[in-house]
Amino acid sequence: MVRFFENEPYSPIEYAYKVESVLYKGKSRYQEILVLENAYFGKILVLDGIVQLTEKDEFFYHEMLTHVAMHAHPDPHRVAVIGGGDGGVVREVLKHGTVEKIYFVEIDEEVVKISRKFFPTVSSGIDDSRVELKIMDGADFMRDHAEAIDVIIVDSTDIIGFARSLFTEDFFRSVLNALQPEGLFVTHSESLHFHLDIVVEVQQILKRAFPLVHLYTAPLATYPGNWWTFAIGSRALDPRDMRRPFEIDARYYDEEIHRQAFLTPKLYGKLIWGKLDW
Amino acid sequence: MVRFFENEPYSPIEYAYKVESVLYKGKSRYQEILVLENAYFGKILVLDGIVQLTEKDEFFYHEMLTHVAMHAHPDPHRVAVIGGGDGGVVREVLKHGTVEKIYFVEIDEEVVKISRKFFPTVSSGIDDSRVELKIMDGADFMRDHAEAIDVIIVDSTDIIGFARSLFTEDFFRSVLNALQPEGLFVTHSESLHFHLDIVVEVQQILKRAFPLVHLYTAPLATYPGNWWTFAIGSRALDPRDMRRPFEIDARYYDEEIHRQAFLTPKLYGKLIWGKLDW
Repeated sequence: MVRFFENEPYSPIEYAYKVESVLYKGKSRYQEILVLENAYFGKILVLDGIVQLTEKDEFFYHEMLTHVAMHAHPDPHRVAVIGGGDGGVVREVLKHGTVEKIYFVEIDEEVVKISRKFFPTVSSGIDDSRVELKIMDGADFMRDHAEAIDVIIVDSTDIIGFARSLFTEDFFRSVLNALQPEGLFVTHSESLHFHLDIVVEVQQILKRAFPLVHLYTAPLATYPGNWWTFAIGSRALDPRDMRRPFEIDARYYDEEIHRQAFLTPKLYGKLIWGKLDW
Repeated sequence: MVRFFENEPYSPIEYAYKVESVLYKGKSRYQEILVLENAYFGKILVLDGIVQLTEKDEFFYHEMLTHVAMHAHPDPHRVAVIGGGDGGVVREVLKHGTVEKIYFVEIDEEVVKISRKFFPTVSSGIDDSRVELKIMDGADFMRDHAEAIDVIIVDSTDIIGFARSLFTEDFFRSVLNALQPEGLFVTHSESLHFHLDIVVEVQQILKRAFPLVHLYTAPLATYPGNWWTFAIGSRALDPRDMRRPFEIDARYYDEEIHRQAFLTPKLYGKLIWGKLDW
């Protein structure tokens, strides 16, 4: 057995997984792709040396990235998923019966192919007739869809590589422009333990574009720092409120988690005013 | 620089820290003691190969282990801290002006000595006149203090070594017996991600002894699985309610965190009825 490490500077703790076997190792135009097998977590997808998902715990991330915005919207019909080439977010969006159209916008077609082959339980929704796969840059997609989308979900790799372009004020303004008046936008934004500067920066940039901005968290065992954040922006509707009943199958998310996941007002205030000192 | 690993079976992910220097390495009657220096976390205390605290993030654990029970009690005068030889919980208990007496019951005197020497900001309260250090087994202490204590806090090592004796029905009954009628008891109980069986087992054993039992969590970056649990038992008072205002200095805990930290009713129900399947 070999070990796989997730290294600094991304994390001050190295996370090492015992590798039963390496199922795939390749390089796309954009990144190195690795599929590992681990006895506890099952198959693991690694992009540019960073764990993206494991079969065992991917549901925490995919449910929490998807269902908060989807329940805060009163009637989501058209959804855009930017990134998330593994298909996990698409699978979760499809649980909502109101959805008629999902634009699945992924820049790296290789990730979609690898997920189809090695992660069938994650990529299971990709071939649904409501899904339109578009291999292109998320920023280019936004320009062509003014006020057309109800919910936009960015499922990017970490905010240290080429995904950086999805966290600029320009991009957030193009997202706002692509949303219908009741639209919501959500993206992950790294760990409150290990990437506090990034969490704050994303909130601040998002606030320059969106009228309403909030932050919620989920506990993710396989992302360094674990205490993972999600930045949510809204044109008009408070994302802390649910506007549709919780009626989907989910293993972690539910109506109680929806509210509890949001940062408490005092902690959020300290975060934004720079008074968090860890 | 060398690397320090925290291994299976305790964690399915190995956590590795870059070690700038080894400040102390020794063996007490009970365990191996290691003090490491790391550029990001500062000094790290390791017992039997498992990280107990780091200077950078120990406040999350010590605040959350201490202040929930201390605020759920209307007027805590006498407190017992079982374990926690580093002094972190004692430091937090002393923030409460009502406290007249802290029994500080630690079985391993070496840990107290090492903390005095290497972790002065953690052990700072040990010499306070209200603190009585007793080098003895926690179970023996309980037998001699019937209905004498307001809050009992167990700060043990992990529930896989000799600390196991602090998680039996016999011990929990002796704790109940040592508590005054409004008394509360709290202990850590491992990670919801990696030690779900232990979390459930501690809840079930605690329920055999205590009328009221609950579970709350805190995000701890340096404990494997991170999503750390605290089991709280009460003779009569619901521990989710605060009975005194939040007026202490704390970096993470506050009156909003107090309530949000408790597992939501649905998630708690699934935990206890065995319907959590991760």
